[in-house]
Amino acid sequence: MNYPNGKKHKSKALVTKQLKNSKIEYGKRGMRFEEEIDLSNQFYMKENIAIIHKKPTPVQIVDVSYPRRSQAVIKEAYFRKPSTTDYNGIYKGKYIDFEAKATQNKTSFPLNNIHQHQVTHMQQVTDHGAICFILFYFSSHDEVYLLPFTAFKKYWSAYLQEKTKSIPYLVIQKEGIHVNRKFQPRIDYIQAVNSIYFNGLNESEEI
Amino acid sequence: MNYPNGKKHKSKALVTKQLKNSKIEYGKRGMRFEEEIDLSNQFYMKENIAIIHKKPTPVQIVDVSYPRRSQAVIKEAYFRKPSTTDYNGIYKGKYIDFEAKATQNKTSFPLNNIHQHQVTHMQQVTDHGAICFILFYFSSHDEVYLLPFTAFKKYWSAYLQEKTKSIPYLVIQKEGIHVNRKFQPRIDYIQAVNSIYFNGLNESEEI
Repeated sequence: MNYPNGKKHKSKALVTKQLKNSKIEYGKRGMRFEEEIDLSNQFYMKENIAIIHKKPTPVQIVDVSYPRRSQAVIKEAYFRKPSTTDYNGIYKGKYIDFEAKATQNKTSFPLNNIHQHQVTHMQQVTDHGAICFILFYFSSHDEVYLLPFTAFKKYWSAYLQEKTKSIPYLVIQKEGIHVNRKFQPRIDYIQAVNSIYFNGLNESEEI
Repeated sequence: MNYPNGKKHKSKALVTKQLKNSKIEYGKRGMRFEEEIDLSNQFYMKENIAIIHKKPTPVQIVDVSYPRRSQAVIKEAYFRKPSTTDYNGIYKGKYIDFEAKATQNKTSFPLNNIHQHQVTHMQQVTDHGAICFILFYFSSHDEVYLLPFTAFKKYWSAYLQEKTKSIPYLVIQKEGIHVNRKFQPRIDYIQAVNSIYFNGLNESEEI
């Protein structure tokens, strides 16, 4: 059975309960969200709709050994903070750039999940004419929203002024666009991009 | 007096000889080229001309340990082949994407330095309207050239058909654009981009 928001027939109550009680499950859900975006990007690429890639995780490599000539082994390395967002690419000739964030929280998205350098980057590319946004995944609702950076930034300013610690779920629901979950693409954020940046053109329906 | 591998009184001829014979010295030159591009990108960002970043090196992480809560240590990881080019970003609202390659070779650039998946990526983004090119650094000449992907691809086709193994230096010189070396930016490839993609607008002169 499908609900109005397009959710599938999963035993919703059980999943929600697991999400609430288990950090591991939450981690998995976060991972699943990333995987779903990756799968969506593969779909967009295969269908020649958009060319968007996830950037590799930045790593500071300290020690590499060469046990065989063919394959080097990294023996010591550290995670570095990314200086940009995770995803970028090209859609309809335009530069597209976004960050994807998941939360277990039901009523708001905590802003300490986002870093200043990422916001700076999003401001920079926005100033240069990018399509720039954040995809929010509320695991407790199993819902994805696209919030344009231009809508996001006023909440970031309030956060910097210590006027808020989070963006309410209802605000994201109101100012963002609900992103449909489908079989293919799993997270059809390009449809949401069309509705905001291209006057509602539905690329998915063209296929 | 200079010995073939001596370190005293380095003459230019000897240095050139070392460059030819030494992988380490060559590696350093390649590194310096990358660093110069990074410095140029920092300059373009600071001056608000373009927002372009190098993508992190893709790494397959196998084992991570957590000696302290604050910092995870990657204990085993492997280099993966990149699925895209190294650099991308936004310039004048357009998506820009390029690869940077160095060679010691005086007379040609060996095409086995470039991978099919990178060429596929460059074709994809070009089809979607990107500004896409390769920066070639000829260390023996200490010269940088920008070759648009559209000019590059016919040599790649010939390479795939085993009609050639390289692009002659003279071809790159003729079909590419010589990139000026300066104090700032070190490698002014945006000036070359302007001359090809924006009818010769010289952004650097506007500053």
